[in-house]
Amino acid sequence: MAKSRSFIPDWTETAPPAGSYRSIFKWGAPDGFKHPSNAWYRMMKQDFHLSDADFMRKYEEGSAKVVLNRTPALKPEQIAVLTVIVGKENVALDDYSRVKYASGKTTEEILEMRQGIIRKVADVIVHPRDKHDVQHIVEYCDKEFIPITVFSAGSSVNFGCRPAKGGVSLVISTHMNKLLEVNELNQTARVQPGMFGPAYEDALNKAPERFGCKRRYTCGHFPQSFEYSTVGGWVVTLGSGQASTYYGDAYDIVFSQEYVTPVGTFKTLDYPATATGPKVNDIMKGSEGTFGILVEVTMKIFRYTPENRARFSFMFPAWKAAVDASREIMQSEFGKPAIFRISDPEETDRGLKLYGMPGFLEPFLALRGFKPMQRCLCLGNVEGDRDYTRLVARKIKRIARKHGAMYLTGYAALKWEKTRYTEPYMREDLNDYGIMIDTLEAGVTWDNLHRLHEGVRTFVKSRPGTICMTHASHFYPQGTNLYFIFIARMDMNEYVTFQSGIIDHIVKFGGTLSHHHGVGRLLAPWMETHLGKEQMAVLRAIKKHFDPHNIMNPGGQLGLDEIPQRR
Amino acid sequence: MAKSRSFIPDWTETAPPAGSYRSIFKWGAPDGFKHPSNAWYRMMKQDFHLSDADFMRKYEEGSAKVVLNRTPALKPEQIAVLTVIVGKENVALDDYSRVKYASGKTTEEILEMRQGIIRKVADVIVHPRDKHDVQHIVEYCDKEFIPITVFSAGSSVNFGCRPAKGGVSLVISTHMNKLLEVNELNQTARVQPGMFGPAYEDALNKAPERFGCKRRYTCGHFPQSFEYSTVGGWVVTLGSGQASTYYGDAYDIVFSQEYVTPVGTFKTLDYPATATGPKVNDIMKGSEGTFGILVEVTMKIFRYTPENRARFSFMFPAWKAAVDASREIMQSEFGKPAIFRISDPEETDRGLKLYGMPGFLEPFLALRGFKPMQRCLCLGNVEGDRDYTRLVARKIKRIARKHGAMYLTGYAALKWEKTRYTEPYMREDLNDYGIMIDTLEAGVTWDNLHRLHEGVRTFVKSRPGTICMTHASHFYPQGTNLYFIFIARMDMNEYVTFQSGIIDHIVKFGGTLSHHHGVGRLLAPWMETHLGKEQMAVLRAIKKHFDPHNIMNPGGQLGLDEIPQRR
Repeated sequence: MAKSRSFIPDWTETAPPAGSYRSIFKWGAPDGFKHPSNAWYRMMKQDFHLSDADFMRKYEEGSAKVVLNRTPALKPEQIAVLTVIVGKENVALDDYSRVKYASGKTTEEILEMRQGIIRKVADVIVHPRDKHDVQHIVEYCDKEFIPITVFSAGSSVNFGCRPAKGGVSLVISTHMNKLLEVNELNQTARVQPGMFGPAYEDALNKAPERFGCKRRYTCGHFPQSFEYSTVGGWVVTLGSGQASTYYGDAYDIVFSQEYVTPVGTFKTLDYPATATGPKVNDIMKGSEGTFGILVEVTMKIFRYTPENRARFSFMFPAWKAAVDASREIMQSEFGKPAIFRISDPEETDRGLKLYGMPGFLEPFLALRGFKPMQRCLCLGNVEGDRDYTRLVARKIKRIARKHGAMYLTGYAALKWEKTRYTEPYMREDLNDYGIMIDTLEAGVTWDNLHRLHEGVRTFVKSRPGTICMTHASHFYPQGTNLYFIFIARMDMNEYVTFQSGIIDHIVKFGGTLSHHHGVGRLLAPWMETHLGKEQMAVLRAIKKHFDPHNIMNPGGQLGLDEIPQRR
Repeated sequence: MAKSRSFIPDWTETAPPAGSYRSIFKWGAPDGFKHPSNAWYRMMKQDFHLSDADFMRKYEEGSAKVVLNRTPALKPEQIAVLTVIVGKENVALDDYSRVKYASGKTTEEILEMRQGIIRKVADVIVHPRDKHDVQHIVEYCDKEFIPITVFSAGSSVNFGCRPAKGGVSLVISTHMNKLLEVNELNQTARVQPGMFGPAYEDALNKAPERFGCKRRYTCGHFPQSFEYSTVGGWVVTLGSGQASTYYGDAYDIVFSQEYVTPVGTFKTLDYPATATGPKVNDIMKGSEGTFGILVEVTMKIFRYTPENRARFSFMFPAWKAAVDASREIMQSEFGKPAIFRISDPEETDRGLKLYGMPGFLEPFLALRGFKPMQRCLCLGNVEGDRDYTRLVARKIKRIARKHGAMYLTGYAALKWEKTRYTEPYMREDLNDYGIMIDTLEAGVTWDNLHRLHEGVRTFVKSRPGTICMTHASHFYPQGTNLYFIFIARMDMNEYVTFQSGIIDHIVKFGGTLSHHHGVGRLLAPWMETHLGKEQMAVLRAIKKHFDPHNIMNPGGQLGLDEIPQRR
């Protein structure tokens, strides 16, 4: 047994074999990695009572070649019609495509794929070239009762792109991924839904060169999945970016949308506000592919002024102080920070250990009364006009200090910004050694924040050897979200039961079922309990209107048509 | 014929006779008046080619006693059941009540009432004591197919509270008008829908005394109808307050709602944000009584800090400069003003004449190149934290100057604030002498603003002797609204045709059918053309779900069930 202090697990450092399951479920770039640091490794060994020996052998790595052996249920003549619509180069029937475009990044999906288990696949993969293709496909499938599930980036963590009833997997990101127009007067961008975050942001940053604009723009939406998610996905799942406290959630950033549905195609109107009855533009947001297919969206855009960014970080003596200060900042009406995050004591202490802090800081913090498992880290930045960012940062500093915080400069915020998108890469390394990491998140009002935090934490920590880190990262005058990260060594069956228990506790202690991950099929079983049967009936009525033959992402999405089978 | 320079028309200065039509249609307090100034009077004579002689005799004043002589269509046993539910003191069948609670403030309604013409009335007036009464009434009426039209303040300008199909007029403001709870942690207020603006605002301002709060609060919503409209009305018709540029429209200020509908009662959940599918909380907003009855609403509230208010006013050399500066202000990301208004050249010049300006100003303006029928007045204020208001005001000043504006101090804004709610009183005086005044308004994006302004203005001004004043008063980064005021001497038939023509031109030139007056029955005929049949079909599907027997505000509201008959 190697017990050398310098032992480092053999973290996978090569791109997954072509055609393998791993090449499908691996996060991000095939040759992109972010391994647990030595501190991370030490923490896991200590918390999970493991030794180097436990990191000698990897569990199912999913390196095998994808083999499906399932005959498509569609008739050959149906596939022929779809082929005529999009051209044969845009239709795929091979095993690998059928698995790839049936899979998101749900932990359970990944764990099963490691074992070569595939639950559901589409019969045929279709890559529409444009919105007219989508229209023809939806018309035909509606006539033939063929289910359609949309796949864009596949970053869903809740079985959102699982083709539960087979049929067509419509891959929207292959061709429909362009920025069509920047309207500089209105500060809007008309974009195809399959455009990935970086391409979209880059085009907006380069608006003068690309679109002859006078200014540079930003999309304002930076979820952790930014690099591997698409604009359309943000909208139909109600995503929220890391700078949402200033720019708003995806819901707020949408200006107008064009949808293809079984009962017709329509574009909502371009108005900054209107009083013409309930807003269909809003009704469509968050419909997760169950009403129709988003084929074009006009988004609000914002001036791109990174040179004005003002960063800050603080240490608060306690969670309550951090929450109180956050609330005061959000309600004080001097403007809003863009990024604002507070970590609870466990996340703070683990973070300090994992991401390092200057050697002098620990005794210094202790000396000043910022005690382990009490102190809380806060970091963020302000964006906008230069005088505005300076004012808001100054005001935040004043309020933080009033609540006992110590100012730690903008360093932590800068450091966090640099690694903000890379955390998901670690999941593969942990899973390789049988360690589960997953996240659940909930919106919550200020008056219920502590109850929810304690209720969920108590449940998670009641399981021995379980890490539970929590932060709040999307702020509103009326409340925030809580983002729970749990890490433990457990097998898949225990994981599934444990995750269900956490969701039960989120609902029981008054959190919303999801703040920004969406519902998909994972959370569908809780929807009716959470929203109540009256609200569910409204959603079902709208579903029935748009999709009388239930072809749009059927089989449990949002819990509309059935409670989905997980296995 | 009196041609004395000092002739002043005999503006009505006494409260309308008890029981008269005028006591129903008169705006505001029975003994509240605001008469046209001498300058106004001179302007009307000049523009409409009138002389003092035309102001000797008043037209139909509506002083007659209300007489209806229509037997209620409800069966006595139905009225008996309703009486059992709410108690006999809360049921009325008399002519006066039946007319009063059938009438809003639509110009056409008022003109007809002056002639003693009543188109539609409810069979019975019911004043529910609480939400349980509402629930029992809706259950019973649904079973018996009895229509229900909600009446709260009756300030609708689009036949919104007309009981087109008879049945019950449910008066929500009689008893259901309390502020139930101020949640200071969440900065929300739970309020009954029938509470009037001033009572609501006053209770929030006095939150320390009334609810033991630490701070004072404001509702942030101040429509021109503030004094005679209710919180529930703001929400279900998508109102917008004069300070909406900062606080948001009513749509944005709602936190959660409780509705009684024919298919059940539900309360949407209290969350600052959620990703659990399409938001039923938003779907209900703007439903104008056609889906169900709002019985309780939780609104966001804001810190009340009038001492921080920073006021400003400017003269711009031209409309284009005023629009360009406004757009830059709204897109510059240094924060937002609360009130912000720009008047077009006709409104500016008439305003200067009507509301007076220091004697030296006219030659001074002319000297500096601010020419009549080109120059545009801008005024507003900033609310929030003191340093924030100072910063935003400074930034606004800088941008205004860059666009050629002359700073005119905060005086005009202060003066405007003081008379902001009293303008509607003048309508009665004008109508008394056969002069029509009405307003139509539209949301519009920046890139279409000039086209809409010119298109509608050209139409209005094509009629000789017609005043057309326009301002923009609700601003967003993506656009604003245009508020058209037209004044002319015309009879009712011409008025109705002319108003229709203006609406046609708003739609033709790309404005939204309404920015904040709502749709009611007046705008219903344009809804399908404007939104398109697909969007209308969605609204109708939701309507059908909630109200399968079409008892909720039936007869053309929002154009859902039919195109209403005006006459």
